[in-house]
Amino acid sequence: MARALHAAIGEFEAKDRLAFYRFLVENFLPPEAQLRAAAEAYLAEPTPEHATQVAEAAEPARQELLRRMNMVPGGTAALVAMRRDLLTNLGNEPNLKPLDVDLRHLLASWFNRGFLDLRRIDWQTPAAVLEKLIAYEAVHEIQGWDDLRRRLAPDRRCFAFFHPALPGEPLIFVEVALISGLAAAVQPLLAADGDERAERAREQAADTAIFYSISNCQAGLRGVAFGNFLIKQVVEELKAELPRLGRFSTLSPVPGLRRWLDKRLLEPDAAEVLREAEVAALRLTVGEASQPGNPVALLHRLLEMEDWWKDAMLVEAARAPLTRLCTIYLTTPQGGRGPADPVARFHLGNGARLERVNWLGNVASRGIRESYGIMVNYLYDPEQIEANHEAFVRGAIVCSAAVNALLETPALPTAMAQPKAAIRTRRPPKD
Amino acid sequence: MARALHAAIGEFEAKDRLAFYRFLVENFLPPEAQLRAAAEAYLAEPTPEHATQVAEAAEPARQELLRRMNMVPGGTAALVAMRRDLLTNLGNEPNLKPLDVDLRHLLASWFNRGFLDLRRIDWQTPAAVLEKLIAYEAVHEIQGWDDLRRRLAPDRRCFAFFHPALPGEPLIFVEVALISGLAAAVQPLLAADGDERAERAREQAADTAIFYSISNCQAGLRGVAFGNFLIKQVVEELKAELPRLGRFSTLSPVPGLRRWLDKRLLEPDAAEVLREAEVAALRLTVGEASQPGNPVALLHRLLEMEDWWKDAMLVEAARAPLTRLCTIYLTTPQGGRGPADPVARFHLGNGARLERVNWLGNVASRGIRESYGIMVNYLYDPEQIEANHEAFVRGAIVCSAAVNALLETPALPTAMAQPKAAIRTRRPPKD
Amino acid sequence: MARALHAAIGEFEAKDRLAFYRFLVENFLPPEAQLRAAAEAYLAEPTPEHATQVAEAAEPARQELLRRMNMVPGGTAALVAMRRDLLTNLGNEPNLKPLDVDLRHLLASWFNRGFLDLRRIDWQTPAAVLEKLIAYEAVHEIQGWDDLRRRLAPDRRCFAFFHPALPGEPLIFVEVALISGLAAAVQPLLAADGDERAERAREQAADTAIFYSISNCQAGLRGVAFGNFLIKQVVEELKAELPRLGRFSTLSPVPGLRRWLDKRLLEPDAAEVLREAEVAALRLTVGEASQPGNPVALLHRLLEMEDWWKDAMLVEAARAPLTRLCTIYLTTPQGGRGPADPVARFHLGNGARLERVNWLGNVASRGIRESYGIMVNYLYDPEQIEANHEAFVRGAIVCSAAVNALLETPALPTAMAQPKAAIRTRRPPKD
Amino acid sequence: MARALHAAIGEFEAKDRLAFYRFLVENFLPPEAQLRAAAEAYLAEPTPEHATQVAEAAEPARQELLRRMNMVPGGTAALVAMRRDLLTNLGNEPNLKPLDVDLRHLLASWFNRGFLDLRRIDWQTPAAVLEKLIAYEAVHEIQGWDDLRRRLAPDRRCFAFFHPALPGEPLIFVEVALISGLAAAVQPLLAADGDERAERAREQAADTAIFYSISNCQAGLRGVAFGNFLIKQVVEELKAELPRLGRFSTLSPVPGLRRWLDKRLLEPDAAEVLREAEVAALRLTVGEASQPGNPVALLHRLLEMEDWWKDAMLVEAARAPLTRLCTIYLTTPQGGRGPADPVARFHLGNGARLERVNWLGNVASRGIRESYGIMVNYLYDPEQIEANHEAFVRGAIVCSAAVNALLETPALPTAMAQPKAAIRTRRPPKD
Repeated sequence: MARALHAAIGEFEAKDRLAFYRFLVENFLPPEAQLRAAAEAYLAEPTPEHATQVAEAAEPARQELLRRMNMVPGGTAALVAMRRDLLTNLGNEPNLKPLDVDLRHLLASWFNRGFLDLRRIDWQTPAAVLEKLIAYEAVHEIQGWDDLRRRLAPDRRCFAFFHPALPGEPLIFVEVALISGLAAAVQPLLAADGDERAERAREQAADTAIFYSISNCQAGLRGVAFGNFLIKQVVEELKAELPRLGRFSTLSPVPGLRRWLDKRLLEPDAAEVLREAEVAALRLTVGEASQPGNPVALLHRLLEMEDWWKDAMLVEAARAPLTRLCTIYLTTPQGGRGPADPVARFHLGNGARLERVNWLGNVASRGIRESYGIMVNYLYDPEQIEANHEAFVRGAIVCSAAVNALLETPALPTAMAQPKAAIRTRRPPKD
Repeated sequence: MARALHAAIGEFEAKDRLAFYRFLVENFLPPEAQLRAAAEAYLAEPTPEHATQVAEAAEPARQELLRRMNMVPGGTAALVAMRRDLLTNLGNEPNLKPLDVDLRHLLASWFNRGFLDLRRIDWQTPAAVLEKLIAYEAVHEIQGWDDLRRRLAPDRRCFAFFHPALPGEPLIFVEVALISGLAAAVQPLLAADGDERAERAREQAADTAIFYSISNCQAGLRGVAFGNFLIKQVVEELKAELPRLGRFSTLSPVPGLRRWLDKRLLEPDAAEVLREAEVAALRLTVGEASQPGNPVALLHRLLEMEDWWKDAMLVEAARAPLTRLCTIYLTTPQGGRGPADPVARFHLGNGARLERVNWLGNVASRGIRESYGIMVNYLYDPEQIEANHEAFVRGAIVCSAAVNALLETPALPTAMAQPKAAIRTRRPPKD
Repeated sequence: MARALHAAIGEFEAKDRLAFYRFLVENFLPPEAQLRAAAEAYLAEPTPEHATQVAEAAEPARQELLRRMNMVPGGTAALVAMRRDLLTNLGNEPNLKPLDVDLRHLLASWFNRGFLDLRRIDWQTPAAVLEKLIAYEAVHEIQGWDDLRRRLAPDRRCFAFFHPALPGEPLIFVEVALISGLAAAVQPLLAADGDERAERAREQAADTAIFYSISNCQAGLRGVAFGNFLIKQVVEELKAELPRLGRFSTLSPVPGLRRWLDKRLLEPDAAEVLREAEVAALRLTVGEASQPGNPVALLHRLLEMEDWWKDAMLVEAARAPLTRLCTIYLTTPQGGRGPADPVARFHLGNGARLERVNWLGNVASRGIRESYGIMVNYLYDPEQIEANHEAFVRGAIVCSAAVNALLETPALPTAMAQPKAAIRTRRPPKD
Repeated sequence: MARALHAAIGEFEAKDRLAFYRFLVENFLPPEAQLRAAAEAYLAEPTPEHATQVAEAAEPARQELLRRMNMVPGGTAALVAMRRDLLTNLGNEPNLKPLDVDLRHLLASWFNRGFLDLRRIDWQTPAAVLEKLIAYEAVHEIQGWDDLRRRLAPDRRCFAFFHPALPGEPLIFVEVALISGLAAAVQPLLAADGDERAERAREQAADTAIFYSISNCQAGLRGVAFGNFLIKQVVEELKAELPRLGRFSTLSPVPGLRRWLDKRLLEPDAAEVLREAEVAALRLTVGEASQPGNPVALLHRLLEMEDWWKDAMLVEAARAPLTRLCTIYLTTPQGGRGPADPVARFHLGNGARLERVNWLGNVASRGIRESYGIMVNYLYDPEQIEANHEAFVRGAIVCSAAVNALLETPALPTAMAQPKAAIRTRRPPKD
């Protein structure tokens, strides 16, 4: 019967599917008399037994229906697809939410980390899986098979989580570059090479693994978290495979920077974010040097110039203020929830620390558009992950000494030495 | 942390484990304020949304803890072992039930049929798996490796369900014999053979697959049902592999017969269950032929004689009454829940029909002790499974014509022809 | 030591390699005294024992050296590469032949059919293998990954032989199209499609498997035959997988046709190969209708016209004479070695029969250049393969009735019905 | 046809098989005219080309026939079985030798080391392979599945070579114990244990790998050498898996000792092999102390006493003379072919050194019978293997200092310190 139901749904039009979802929400409710009795008993006396009885009575029959739909071959894939479809409709039909709650509950249970396989993806992987990487890469688009091959070269690594019930379907994957030193920009990592000997030599010499892209593949599993586990387990795998590797870091975008900055520069005290030397440099390059003018307007004018990032003088004038502003953006806690930037929140919450802010780390159009080309390294130090995570939970944002220096010194430091002992933590504002 | 927790539990003494279970039950409750609010909202207005809110609020934090314990390597195995241990303590400590409810809820979700692999077990299977078959076989004990080899010979099949998180651990397995005709007794199926040519010839000539043993392996998964799916899927596998096979039947024990009969024969109308000719035969063999005496006492006397089943005359005298009484036992519905015998209830509920009652089908001591040596065939006809199951749900017990004849004719039939058209159904009593 | 030797050879320049080959030829000879003695004993008395002694004494120590070079990981691949290199030098250095004889002897022994694995290649195959298909396809070039994907679609099949010592290295592969009816032209088979539903429907409906490309991958294994076994085993695989398939045929090039025809038309009786109606048609299209002129020159003139195959009138005028001439070319035995065309000799020698000659079956530039666009079907009828092969060994060329008709009737038949009973065989000329 | 031939041979009686072998020897000869011509050309002028021509002409058609017999599924197994059968007949029918020469030539080529897989055998291995270990173990019999399990416990290793054409058929296997210190006796290694924790602890603490049994499995591959490669590759595997292991040694039988000693003690100077103190000890235990008597007769008398090895005094009296005599036996080169003992010749030829002679290393009946219970350690030092092998080829037998001391000192040393610097080599006698 589950089989027949899946077959029918597969043939449904969009409006039939919606009708079916509504049908599931409105029926398959928990048995009212039983739930009422359990609720009343609990309200009268909130013992563990009564709580358990409420939980048992409150489970909607819908969950059992969904569990049965999962029993047939392909059932899991069909339910993931159903939730993907449901999510696109939830905005217009908020009353479908109970169905989403049930689906997410079951999917989170079924896609428990304990059931996932970490697998390395390389040129020995079936083409049917590889083409999914091309389709799902969400951070730095893969330009066809030749580009993919570069990303799977000997000095690269790619790992994905798979679930036994979705064979051949990556759930999430991460792309890693093995290099010497901390990567400051993504374009060199993506550049074609093709000299296998050189690639093998770099693999052997590498001291650093750069996680430069991490992509979720299944829209139907939104809200079921994998990324945290993936990065940590890949760090373990890489340490075991290549003991020379001593540093594990991301090279990450700052997707919310521009939006935040646009607002920040509208505030009354906007001019104060710029330092004297910075204003002078802006004046020299985009304004008349003698004119007083509005410093913020100068910065705006610079960033509106076409291809400003290709002009060395403009680049130099923008560098100091934008780098510092980005650092402020990333290290200002929002209540107890970490910084506003979602990528920063993800990595800092996982126990990484904010290691370095890279000026013009990504000059592709998306990088310029979102963050004026700035990219960031979040460093995963296996020894510190736990402590950093605890600090984050308590409201702190852990930064390297270099990052802290950026915030404090009146000018950008020329060298960015990062003595380990000097790592400091930004405490949340006292309020 | 989950890892550390598992390690600690692994070192616990029995009383530490109990203390830990109690700790889990008494803490990790659902948040009281939230659940209270949700319960009140639901009681005021039982909408789908409010029901969902109750369900969300009622989920104890314990479940999330157990889900996290599942995330580490070996976590699933440890939780299954924990529940096995918990179940042995539940009798003495019924207040641990909420923990069992949570564990069973999660395990049932994780061991959903959609996540199980059906695998054939044969002589190519790793020894580490095979030795588990020897350990777990619950119906007809496996006497070491030579006996095991016989059960995996070319004219035998064995299939098991596995779960990806418990590699090498069968969850349930079924043993099948490929033969010609319907098996009436189990000893010939278990007898050693060793002539591989003959075994291959029988495999090729077979028209019937006899499911002669089905064993659950994981005490910690009690109440999570697999057997139903296993039999049906093995039927599909066998049909695909060996198209000559036209009949799929069990050869099953009747574990509750003796217990039932002992009670039945104490009832005031006990003597009426025997027929005149049967009484005469009993009198001839165990009593003085001329004496009137109590017919039931005669039957008792026979069954108390040492090794009665080795004496042809006694066997013949017991045959008719016991076979008929067994049939009555198996075909008498208990309210709406099918017959009293658990094996009968399992197979009939799955959609099998009661095909044949085999006198002295198992003369091993357990067979004699439990059911006076009687075994039963439950037939799985792929075309009828669904209809039989529906009939069972409505309270009927589907039997072959031969079985019905046993109940109706005044004497046992000599031949047991089973014309398909004559299959009949015993309706439940009208009350 | 073998390992060190391989490493050294790997670093050799071309001239060092040649010197090494010469060294191998001039040294490592069989022991002269022993071989001399064995040869004399055999000449005196040619018994089986003496023959064996000659064979043992004549085996050069070089073979043992090569066997030891094979023992290390990667040894087989290195020897195959060595022979590929050697073969390119053999033209200039015929004295290296003894080394080639030894290498071929050993490789033929090691790559015995019994050691090869037939594997299906599809979209689940590792990319590292798939890219080799792109590189090695020798008949109809694969234009990148999208073209490859089409050739591995549900209504296509691809199989290759692999050797355990060369994992991931196909030795030879064949591409098959599953269609309805006998394919007459290759371009439709290569055309992109991309509608997976339609592809699956064609797969299920297909009655014919067309082998449209077969490519050897390893130049170092030249002279070690695989193709014969590959086709026959693929026929078996396909019959087992898709019982609807009733016809197995190639769609093959005629690589030697143009070369042969150029010579043939220079012979004194060249004009006689054309028939009256054909000459008239040629005159109408390429010459002045009233002019007498040389018929052969007319044909030449047509075939020299640019893009003649795109002009319907020219195509029609060329069709009858070229189709017939091609048939003559393919059915004229050369002494006892079958026809001159190597592809024809290969398939006819394998037991196929010449089934149909397809006018403009391949209008790619290579097809036009080699054979004026003609392609041919060789049909593998599992029931007839053995008999056809025997006939071929005795000098006959087995053709379908339609092909025979082409040779005999004064004009091309309009319909090409092929009644099975009418298959006839062209006997070799009696001389 | 090859298939049909194999089927026919499979049904042959013994005498039919012999007739078939004779038929193969007497027919399928090399072409006489061609071989004659090649032989004459070579005799006239023994160039590389002529030698190659002889080799090509001398290859009997029989080899090609055998190669074709290998092409079908199961062909290799059938040919290995054929040679096994042939070898048992060769004693009575020496004229079948040419067939054996051909089979061995082909099998040696096909079973080249480069084509073999080394696989670890453990409790995860299919039962079908494991039961072959039980069947084939030739040195220390495996007493059923429980004994086998002990040999595959965590502190044991077992490795075998497999060939792709004989899946599931080990060719040769070696059993290894991981222990601390050099094993002096085999019974402790074979003793049951069953405490998995203790086994794992020993595995982790081990500094020595003892190769205590090595068995060839395929009689049909006699004369095709694997053992040498197996030991060396297992040493590499173990070093990679367990870096703590620093010593790799056998614990080997001395199968020819008793036979040699029986002869040696018959020689006229027999009495001189015993030393004064030894004679005194023998006199004390087996003779009358005052009697002069024949010292050799005393030793004989001791060794004829029932269960002498269970009597501490007898054991002590026999220890010194037998240990020294065994050392003499193992270190006396026979011409250029190493010592007389086949096991010693094998290991010393592979580059091991004679490390220690163990008194009463094997008190099973076979050990007592063959070598008065003595076992020997041959040590494989990866750094020295090559040099030792070279020394052996030049006629030397490499021994530890302790072994040399045994030969030289007038009495047995009490402690057997083995300073590495003191390893010495016994040169062959100058003749």
